[in-house]
Amino acid sequence: MAGLGTVGGGLLKLIERQAELRLPGKLEVVAVSARNKNRNRGVDISKFRWADDPMELATAPDIDVIVELIGGSDGPAKRTVEAALRSGKSVVSANKALIAEHGIEIAALAEKHEAHLLFEAAVAGAIPIVRAVKNSLSGVIVSRVSGILNGTCNYILSEMLRTGAAYETVLAEAQRLGYAESDPFLDVSGGDAAHKVLILAAIAFGAQPAFDQVQVEGIDKIEAMDITLANKFDYRIKLVAEAFRANGSARCRVAPVLVSKEHPLAQVNGPLNAVVVEGEPVGRLTFTGPGAGSGPTAAAVMGDLARLFEGPATPPLGKPSRDLAPIITKADSATDQGSFFIGAKLADKPGMFAALTEELAEAGVSIDKLIQESAGDTGAAPVAIMTHPCPRAAVERALSRVAELKITADEPRLLRIETRA
Amino acid sequence: MAGLGTVGGGLLKLIERQAELRLPGKLEVVAVSARNKNRNRGVDISKFRWADDPMELATAPDIDVIVELIGGSDGPAKRTVEAALRSGKSVVSANKALIAEHGIEIAALAEKHEAHLLFEAAVAGAIPIVRAVKNSLSGVIVSRVSGILNGTCNYILSEMLRTGAAYETVLAEAQRLGYAESDPFLDVSGGDAAHKVLILAAIAFGAQPAFDQVQVEGIDKIEAMDITLANKFDYRIKLVAEAFRANGSARCRVAPVLVSKEHPLAQVNGPLNAVVVEGEPVGRLTFTGPGAGSGPTAAAVMGDLARLFEGPATPPLGKPSRDLAPIITKADSATDQGSFFIGAKLADKPGMFAALTEELAEAGVSIDKLIQESAGDTGAAPVAIMTHPCPRAAVERALSRVAELKITADEPRLLRIETRA
Repeated sequence: MAGLGTVGGGLLKLIERQAELRLPGKLEVVAVSARNKNRNRGVDISKFRWADDPMELATAPDIDVIVELIGGSDGPAKRTVEAALRSGKSVVSANKALIAEHGIEIAALAEKHEAHLLFEAAVAGAIPIVRAVKNSLSGVIVSRVSGILNGTCNYILSEMLRTGAAYETVLAEAQRLGYAESDPFLDVSGGDAAHKVLILAAIAFGAQPAFDQVQVEGIDKIEAMDITLANKFDYRIKLVAEAFRANGSARCRVAPVLVSKEHPLAQVNGPLNAVVVEGEPVGRLTFTGPGAGSGPTAAAVMGDLARLFEGPATPPLGKPSRDLAPIITKADSATDQGSFFIGAKLADKPGMFAALTEELAEAGVSIDKLIQESAGDTGAAPVAIMTHPCPRAAVERALSRVAELKITADEPRLLRIETRA
Repeated sequence: MAGLGTVGGGLLKLIERQAELRLPGKLEVVAVSARNKNRNRGVDISKFRWADDPMELATAPDIDVIVELIGGSDGPAKRTVEAALRSGKSVVSANKALIAEHGIEIAALAEKHEAHLLFEAAVAGAIPIVRAVKNSLSGVIVSRVSGILNGTCNYILSEMLRTGAAYETVLAEAQRLGYAESDPFLDVSGGDAAHKVLILAAIAFGAQPAFDQVQVEGIDKIEAMDITLANKFDYRIKLVAEAFRANGSARCRVAPVLVSKEHPLAQVNGPLNAVVVEGEPVGRLTFTGPGAGSGPTAAAVMGDLARLFEGPATPPLGKPSRDLAPIITKADSATDQGSFFIGAKLADKPGMFAALTEELAEAGVSIDKLIQESAGDTGAAPVAIMTHPCPRAAVERALSRVAELKITADEPRLLRIETRA
């Protein structure tokens, strides 16, 4: 075991209880490695061999499997995984960044050395979605994989709706509760969800994971008023990660999106994750569960460890890496068609509401629904607009005019509305 | 392929499209068998070898895999599966009755001949729950598996709520639409859901499937008034199949149950299926999707066929059949504690409401909520009662007095209320 953070501790505890599990064989912890030997992990590690450098484990002749829980797309995690695969060892990893950013080369290395490389824990915690998409659903022609893949963002958005508090307030509370890291950037920027959805896309579509082709937008610009007013339209704002086929290629994107209250993702609250797989001839499958945490992630690692007893290694991404198609490509989102949500506060001057709606009309954007609330003491009146279907470029054009004319007191938020039920 | 009904036709179509799938190898249909050679299946079977008797396929030397889609717990399905396993052939089956009623002996046969026996399609259609519980979640100590496992019943109950129509009316409509069989007994009696939940229980708990130990109650006695009045209490009536550990043994039961509108199963409507897996250290995982139909079931069979390329056979029920514990046992439901729902129509005589509530009080049953509606033209007033927690035996005692005294115009329905959120 390389890396002994919260997941590592949970895994050691679960391995101690393996008699209660249904593993097809017996696991033995040979050695452990972490940055800090003396940290209290609630579990006795003194009985295991200690390595200061995880690379020692990767090449040790008495070790069959490396469990990589170091994290990070590069550095010691990557070096350890590569060295282990080169020694023909099996690797079980929870490292989404590594698989998303270096999946092709690492999968190729695993294939070359006929070594297992399994990473169920990298996506959606305890939800066994990697193996489901890779194996159980290999008879499905997947058209779309979408989901709520970051529990931190989902918790923050759920709490902003529940309490009406500002993003910064709820983030601080999430950090206090352990739902958000002290450096929350990777979560709130959408980057973590992007890693995860890219891994699912690669497997579901037989595609090369190309992280630089994922369109990523985070939740850090969302205002409480956006969530409150979307709710009045009977919509929720969720950070949706999705990958879908489009014109022979595939798109992969993460963004805050409005989904109707009836949508399966609308009902996924707090730190839960959910994944929706759509395809022929099955229609829609939904998987929901805890997306993070010591226990759920350790159980996912354990499921991978159980797989090692079942037979020889298969290609980590489903298809052999050389057969993965380079189809994940960034589309110019300005060419997107759809319905959009605009949230903003009007500047504290007369005529601003008329000016806003005029600019939208000018750009050919027609309004489906609109709420304007009282400015109250602030002088800046919250406005939320849902458009009829139109090109995104038209809305963007209108909003750049709005910025020029200083019609709003803040930078307007432009969000896609998911119109599929 | 033995059996060419709607699933068989769907599978042949999917095999024709296998270049679009992500199978690790190539499938070739060698021969087919069915009762009627000339039925129109929307797919050309003339290019395949035909066998009048599926037993010919089970022993043919040029066949590796038997796909058993005949159905039924005994007769030709069982004979064919057993003969195929004895010849060392792999078997993929969609036959829940066969696995639930003869799982132990057939699993033992498969293990003896080191043959694959896979049956993802037997439970919850396209939801890949068998493999999830067996493999991905083998690192989870499962405490409970529950779900909506019969789409026909779920459709009927959903439609009774939506339209207010009587059971018989909605059943006839379901038959017209193809959601219910012309002989609906196995579905509406709860027997089909019982087969499915027993299979999941056997795998999740490492238990011997003992079909005679499953407590089964169907939906055919539910009145539209029960559903309507439960809805007024903010509850849904769902046919819930569940298996859970209790005092060193395990219980397995199927019954119509009241679940609160917020419960994950309450939101599963129409012909959908859902499975909830609870355990340590993961909490709760929910899987939702189409539970039946040609395409979804064929895709599940295809996932099993893909498994055949991955490596040697493993025990069909997870643990080797000799290690499965005989822990599934019927409890005396009269000893159950809980909150209960009573639905009935009062007899057309004065004082009946007082008599009913007196009998409940007499038996020590305390009322949490109650609705009595107007008798209207019928003279018989619909009553629905939710009790505070009490022994089921007490409610049963009260209801037998109610029957003696002819207090109600119909036979009261006594349903458990699921109080866990």
